[in-house]
Amino acid sequence: DFLHALDEVKPLFGAAEEELSRRILGDIVHYSRHIEDILEEGRLFINQVRKDESSPVLSVALHGPPGSGKTALAASMSMDSGFPFIKLLSPEDMVGYSEMQKVQQIEKTFRDAYKSPLSVIVIDDIEILLDWVPIGPRFSNSVLQALKTLLKKQPPKDRRLLIFATTSQRSVLHQLQLVFNAQIVVPNVNTQEELAHVLRHSGVFSDRDQQQAVTEIQEMTGSTEIGVGIKQILEGIRTAKQDKDVAGRFARIMSQAIADRTAFA
Amino acid sequence: DFLHALDEVKPLFGAAEEELSRRILGDIVHYSRHIEDILEEGRLFINQVRKDESSPVLSVALHGPPGSGKTALAASMSMDSGFPFIKLLSPEDMVGYSEMQKVQQIEKTFRDAYKSPLSVIVIDDIEILLDWVPIGPRFSNSVLQALKTLLKKQPPKDRRLLIFATTSQRSVLHQLQLVFNAQIVVPNVNTQEELAHVLRHSGVFSDRDQQQAVTEIQEMTGSTEIGVGIKQILEGIRTAKQDKDVAGRFARIMSQAIADRTAFA
Amino acid sequence: DFLHALDEVKPLFGAAEEELSRRILGDIVHYSRHIEDILEEGRLFINQVRKDESSPVLSVALHGPPGSGKTALAASMSMDSGFPFIKLLSPEDMVGYSEMQKVQQIEKTFRDAYKSPLSVIVIDDIEILLDWVPIGPRFSNSVLQALKTLLKKQPPKDRRLLIFATTSQRSVLHQLQLVFNAQIVVPNVNTQEELAHVLRHSGVFSDRDQQQAVTEIQEMTGSTEIGVGIKQILEGIRTAKQDKDVAGRFARIMSQAIADRTAFA
Amino acid sequence: DFLHALDEVKPLFGAAEEELSRRILGDIVHYSRHIEDILEEGRLFINQVRKDESSPVLSVALHGPPGSGKTALAASMSMDSGFPFIKLLSPEDMVGYSEMQKVQQIEKTFRDAYKSPLSVIVIDDIEILLDWVPIGPRFSNSVLQALKTLLKKQPPKDRRLLIFATTSQRSVLHQLQLVFNAQIVVPNVNTQEELAHVLRHSGVFSDRDQQQAVTEIQEMTGSTEIGVGIKQILEGIRTAKQDKDVAGRFARIMSQAIADRTAFA
Amino acid sequence: DFLHALDEVKPLFGAAEEELSRRILGDIVHYSRHIEDILEEGRLFINQVRKDESSPVLSVALHGPPGSGKTALAASMSMDSGFPFIKLLSPEDMVGYSEMQKVQQIEKTFRDAYKSPLSVIVIDDIEILLDWVPIGPRFSNSVLQALKTLLKKQPPKDRRLLIFATTSQRSVLHQLQLVFNAQIVVPNVNTQEELAHVLRHSGVFSDRDQQQAVTEIQEMTGSTEIGVGIKQILEGIRTAKQDKDVAGRFARIMSQAIADRTAFA
Amino acid sequence: DFLHALDEVKPLFGAAEEELSRRILGDIVHYSRHIEDILEEGRLFINQVRKDESSPVLSVALHGPPGSGKTALAASMSMDSGFPFIKLLSPEDMVGYSEMQKVQQIEKTFRDAYKSPLSVIVIDDIEILLDWVPIGPRFSNSVLQALKTLLKKQPPKDRRLLIFATTSQRSVLHQLQLVFNAQIVVPNVNTQEELAHVLRHSGVFSDRDQQQAVTEIQEMTGSTEIGVGIKQILEGIRTAKQDKDVAGRFARIMSQAIADRTAFA
Ligand SMILES: Nc1ncnc2c1ncn2[C@@H]1O[C@H](COP(=O)(O)OP(=O)(O)OP(=O)(O)O)[C@@H](O)[C@H]1O
Ligand SMILES: Nc1ncnc2c1ncn2[C@@H]1O[C@H](COP(=O)(O)OP(=O)(O)OP(=O)(O)O)[C@@H](O)[C@H]1O
Ligand SMILES: Nc1ncnc2c1ncn2[C@@H]1O[C@H](COP(=O)(O)OP(=O)(O)OP(=O)(O)O)[C@@H](O)[C@H]1O
Ligand SMILES: Nc1ncnc2c1ncn2[C@@H]1O[C@H](COP(=O)(O)OP(=O)(O)OP(=O)(O)O)[C@@H](O)[C@H]1O
Ligand SMILES: Nc1ncnc2c1ncn2[C@@H]1O[C@H](COP(=O)(O)OP(=O)(O)OP(=O)(O)O)[C@@H](O)[C@H]1O
Ligand SMILES: Nc1ncnc2c1ncn2[C@@H]1O[C@H](COP(=O)(O)OP(=O)(O)OP(=O)(O)O)[C@@H](O)[C@H]1O
Ligand SMILES: [Mg+2]
Ligand SMILES: [Mg+2]
Ligand SMILES: [Mg+2]
Ligand SMILES: [Mg+2]
Ligand SMILES: [Mg+2]
Ligand SMILES: [Mg+2]
Repeated sequence: DFLHALDEVKPLFGAAEEELSRRILGDIVHYSRHIEDILEEGRLFINQVRKDESSPVLSVALHGPPGSGKTALAASMSMDSGFPFIKLLSPEDMVGYSEMQKVQQIEKTFRDAYKSPLSVIVIDDIEILLDWVPIGPRFSNSVLQALKTLLKKQPPKDRRLLIFATTSQRSVLHQLQLVFNAQIVVPNVNTQEELAHVLRHSGVFSDRDQQQAVTEIQEMTGSTEIGVGIKQILEGIRTAKQDKDVAGRFARIMSQAIADRTAFA
Repeated sequence: DFLHALDEVKPLFGAAEEELSRRILGDIVHYSRHIEDILEEGRLFINQVRKDESSPVLSVALHGPPGSGKTALAASMSMDSGFPFIKLLSPEDMVGYSEMQKVQQIEKTFRDAYKSPLSVIVIDDIEILLDWVPIGPRFSNSVLQALKTLLKKQPPKDRRLLIFATTSQRSVLHQLQLVFNAQIVVPNVNTQEELAHVLRHSGVFSDRDQQQAVTEIQEMTGSTEIGVGIKQILEGIRTAKQDKDVAGRFARIMSQAIADRTAFA
Repeated sequence: DFLHALDEVKPLFGAAEEELSRRILGDIVHYSRHIEDILEEGRLFINQVRKDESSPVLSVALHGPPGSGKTALAASMSMDSGFPFIKLLSPEDMVGYSEMQKVQQIEKTFRDAYKSPLSVIVIDDIEILLDWVPIGPRFSNSVLQALKTLLKKQPPKDRRLLIFATTSQRSVLHQLQLVFNAQIVVPNVNTQEELAHVLRHSGVFSDRDQQQAVTEIQEMTGSTEIGVGIKQILEGIRTAKQDKDVAGRFARIMSQAIADRTAFA
Repeated sequence: DFLHALDEVKPLFGAAEEELSRRILGDIVHYSRHIEDILEEGRLFINQVRKDESSPVLSVALHGPPGSGKTALAASMSMDSGFPFIKLLSPEDMVGYSEMQKVQQIEKTFRDAYKSPLSVIVIDDIEILLDWVPIGPRFSNSVLQALKTLLKKQPPKDRRLLIFATTSQRSVLHQLQLVFNAQIVVPNVNTQEELAHVLRHSGVFSDRDQQQAVTEIQEMTGSTEIGVGIKQILEGIRTAKQDKDVAGRFARIMSQAIADRTAFA
Repeated sequence: DFLHALDEVKPLFGAAEEELSRRILGDIVHYSRHIEDILEEGRLFINQVRKDESSPVLSVALHGPPGSGKTALAASMSMDSGFPFIKLLSPEDMVGYSEMQKVQQIEKTFRDAYKSPLSVIVIDDIEILLDWVPIGPRFSNSVLQALKTLLKKQPPKDRRLLIFATTSQRSVLHQLQLVFNAQIVVPNVNTQEELAHVLRHSGVFSDRDQQQAVTEIQEMTGSTEIGVGIKQILEGIRTAKQDKDVAGRFARIMSQAIADRTAFA
Repeated sequence: DFLHALDEVKPLFGAAEEELSRRILGDIVHYSRHIEDILEEGRLFINQVRKDESSPVLSVALHGPPGSGKTALAASMSMDSGFPFIKLLSPEDMVGYSEMQKVQQIEKTFRDAYKSPLSVIVIDDIEILLDWVPIGPRFSNSVLQALKTLLKKQPPKDRRLLIFATTSQRSVLHQLQLVFNAQIVVPNVNTQEELAHVLRHSGVFSDRDQQQAVTEIQEMTGSTEIGVGIKQILEGIRTAKQDKDVAGRFARIMSQAIADRTAFA
């Protein structure tokens, strides 16, 4: 039993579970069949690490546009693994760290993971962990080389490790030659049907409001394509809720988001 | 009651109120209907943070040309929120800080904010905080990565945080991939009508002086467009007041400002 | 009375007066009406700071070619202000300082100024203070960001501050986005009339010598344009004085100076 | 006898043997005649160092695409040498080291090797040891210069040293002018026959599954060329094993791998 | 009397005289009338500093190709000044200094000079002092800014300072905006007549040898132009002296030197 | 007598002789008349320093392709000088040194040399000493400036110093403006005759083997040109010796070497 196992390591590894659940505010909305495919693929990798002793380390990159749900999905899959060691490596916990302190923190997390027979490490926002900026570009080469090495390093005997890493900048991985064993693509909410699914699920929109919003967005943007992340859509719903004209405000916010994406793509 | 609440945190957080009021020297002149729209939108975000527990953190960027009134507007909206914790993060208070000291100051401010149920942080002149210079370009990557992370970080349970950030260099945000949940555009004083409104409101110009100034500017620049920030206009009025020929001097100063803007745009 | 007031702060602020007078070796030659215009404009800004409490801080950049007299004019205007605190911030006093030591020195000077109700700070050779070199370009970003912030920072209540800054590289200010409230342009000695005025005033040239020099320069350069700074002209007069053929030597030196300027413009 | 000799130095040099064997998880599959050629060439160099006293130091670079088996082959050849000192220099053991610490570690390994009459040093992933990133490019010049020097340096009298270095970035060696005495090229699994050999050897695929997989890959990629490293193929087999449709899943994984390689080549 | 005066400051300033004389190994050969012109111009600047109290600081750059005799000429002119303080600032005495140590040494030398009523500072090889390399280009900005400031700085009351600086890279001064009050150009040995003058003066060549050498050079290079520095010519004479065929060897060395100059110009 | 003199300084300067001899493993094969010319020219410079007191310092660069024999020739010439102080400055002895430690080591070596009336310093692999890499390019400016200065610096009275420096990257010297008094070019083994000379001298090849090897190389490369350094040829002979088919293996190795050189030239 996973929760039981986690309790056992808690004194050593901290409240990994609570941290990860906080990343899944609300639930995972199954607005498209891709969501189930992604979760299924996650289970495949979990089984490989659990059962095949020739795969003692396996690294999987989740990439997709900003706010598409990468962190929530990675957290969800890790929780489902039931592995006794689950740990989130996030830039949020390293604000103000020097490059070397980051490397040490990362290295320590891997060392901790090697103590458990089965472990998952979630590396969130890997491009921020790397201090990546496209101008220059600049990044922390120390962190990069540490990750390159650790993603490839064999754990000690009888230890197995699964690594999920999220990034909204797939090209960064290629430019930096940071190689993963497998890749999972997380999509935006792309069609009007998918958007409608999310709106319905929110409970904020009446059927008419929902239809009006979708129609107005199409009028404002002159297109039926959406292409916005689930996170931004949920945020937009919450802002619009404060306005008397919920549907109109939501349409304006979404159109702005769509226009911005187009302008800076 | 806001002032009361602020008093309570004062011992901890310092004279936030006084600092912020000093940014609103004189009042907010409603020289155009955009000003009211901006203040209205500010109220919307304040309400969202206050009422919706699914939006525990919300970040809003105010951008517009130099001197267009960004700081005054951000200060004004924060004061209106009535939130118990209001704090200004300004480069003025970090002259001579190392990159790391800045990061620590920023991080501390967020940690302080997480102690109050409802908080506003105003990050003023975000491009100066980032030590941004267009040649290179150069900037502090440590500060950037800290901001990226903190703007996104979930506050602890039952804590909500609204962040206003001002910048006169919108493109900097895009180049540095510094993402906000929402954006507010602050305009220049653009038309002769808007300028006339400001001049009238200043109490320095007679009706004839005002008309003469506007006319002379049009003659000197060969255009009816103004495109100068409210701050520079108010400063120009104060310089012109020292001259015997108030209207003429003001027209010369403004024409110079308009020419400079055009030359270096 | 200014001298009296200065005496009072002397123990605290050092011999500002003496330092500044040393920058005005000899007098200000009124070789053109622009000189009076510049001094007049200086008086305007001094009055604005003295009288208008809505202008607690005002920054003025003096820019012009090397040796055009910027430092002498800034020093002269500051002395004329009669403000109780007058301070020169010059790279000469910071040779061998680290970037951080410079920032601290600058910041301390502003802090000192805030202690006096009315203050003038002269920042001399701002591009050297910034360690600016056009190749790269390189410069001290710490000093730049400190200046950006301090030029904009509101002094404490009831304190007013006027800042004069000199530079021979106006474009540097624009490239570095270092913004001043106002700008004063200091010209070269440009016409033969202006040059003749300076030669006459020097007392070194007989009427014939003066005419001969001007004529020879025109012959050597093939132009009536001079375009050399007052400082270099005065230096040239002093070198020529050592030669038996004063006029001829002066003409050769000036022609060389004019040719050099053209070659490297 | 090699194992005996190794035992003797163990207290000094650590469990080199165990480390190296861990790099040969599973065995070396002879899927093509190139494999035997490579091992043969290795024996030639081993003999030269063993027998010719005019070759006291010899450096051999193994290069080939990622996952082509370089590390396993270098480890295998070193173990076969029977030399009393065998040591692996790997970035895995230097995570978080500063440049200088790396240089010291490398230098110490060479110094240790000089104590044994016959030694092999395997330098694994030399481009990671150099902190190489193609953007910039960036790399550790200290490590580079140390390697340049040590690869060339004469051991003390009566000491002989063979160096194997692996890299997946041959061009890096040329760009950095890092010269080896000899080069061994390690190929990908390139033909359908070679792939079939590996699948058969895995024991996971029935004859029909194997044929189906090869056929489907050809259909998906539209080509008979494979061009994937043995390591990735073995990993793919292990993932596919978790799926009910082993052949189909394997084909999809391989096609993806082939497509990725093409896209980023 | 100069030597007497120098003796007085010796305990403080060290054996300036000896150092400088060592730079004038052998004598100054007057192989062309330019040499006398240069020395004459030097005397002019010495007089200006000695006599005109409005010129308390004067900086003169000697520039010319490598080995053209800049250092010897600067040393010679300084010795002729008879000023009580004469000091050589040379990179030779700062090998291994950090940038800051160099700045301190330079600053100290100026401070020492300010203690004497009349001083000369010779700054030798200013581009090496600046750590200048054309690739990059790289240079020490700290040293540059210190020199910029010190060349311009007014000495204390009743102190006068003359600065000679040598460089073989005039363009460096312009690129770095390092401004001098005056410039002296030092030429190469350019004509066959000048070369013959030097050969005759050396006492090594018979009349026939001298003629033969000049003729052979012309044949080998296909030109009557020489364009080599006096220093390299004197060195060539000394090498050729070791050969039995003095004239032939000298011709080969010179032709090589001329070819090299052309190839890398 | 040289050996006697060396013995005298040994306690101070270490086993210079042994170090240098180790660089001349085996002998100098006179495979072409250029070898004698080079040694002759070396004797010329040695005599100049020994006999002419106006040449107290003389620097000679030996440059040629990798492995062409520069180090062996420099060592050989130094040993032949019979000077009492002979010292090798090699990157091999400075692995892991910081830039400053290198500068100090270099500077100390020169200081030591100044203690002996006649000295030779061999600076081996000057581009590695400079940490030179063509990408960037990067190099140690501290070491560069130290060398620039020391190569030019006059030794104390009655001290003479000859410097030999080796490099396989002549262009580096020019790019870095590192100037020597003279240059010696060391060639590759270029013709079939020269190669045959080396093979015969090795004693490994029968007459038929030798002819076969030369013929096969010509067939494989399609050219009679060799263009490989003596060092690589000797190494190739030693590897081929391990194979049963000596001539064939040698031909393959050489053809590969020739092809590599062409590919990366
Ligand atoms: N199908 C879904 N997949 C992922 N997240 C979902 C889904 N449905 C709802 N959500 C919610 O949407 C939000 C997705 O935010 P999340 O932080 O995971 O996105 P992200 O891609 O990691 O964003 P970022 O690019 O900013 O890191 C979460 O609050 C999550 O609960
Ligand atoms: N409608 C208005 N909006 C904003 N400021 C106004 C308005 N009317 C008057 N003001 C005054 O104009 C000034 C605006 O200055 P403020 O510093 O806010 O501009 P800014 O855009 O932040 O400038 P900067 O780009 O230099 O940071 C303030 O003094 C404010 O009191
Ligand atoms: N009209 C004038 N304006 C300015 N300076 C004058 C004038 N007439 C004479 N002078 C003298 O000319 C000199 C001008 O030198 P100053 O150092 O002020 O020039 P600068 O422009 O600051 O030079 P730099 O570009 O080198 O800093 C001073 O000695 C000053 O006394
Ligand atoms: N013929 C073979 N050659 C090499 N390795 C083989 C061979 N057959 C099977 N293998 C196995 O394939 C794997 C090759 O992985 P290895 O780490 O050596 O590749 P690599 O080229 O070093 O990878 P990387 O580029 O990631 O460093 C090992 O597990 C090894 O046991
Ligand atoms: N007319 C002359 N002018 C200068 N030097 C001369 C002259 N005649 C002979 N010499 C001798 O020539 C040599 C010139 O060398 P010096 O070091 O001064 O040249 P340099 O231009 O400073 O060289 P570098 O560019 O290497 O610094 C000295 O030894 C000097 O004695
Ligand atoms: N004529 C020769 N000249 C030089 N070296 C020779 C000659 N004949 C035989 N040799 C041998 O060839 C080898 C030359 O190697 P050496 O290290 O001197 O070359 P190098 O040019 O310095 O190489 P690198 O470019 O790697 O520094 C030495 O072992 C030397 O004994
Ligand atoms: Mg995320
Ligand atoms: Mg502002
Ligand atoms: Mg000045
Ligand atoms: Mg490997
Ligand atoms: Mg010199
Ligand atoms: Mg060598």
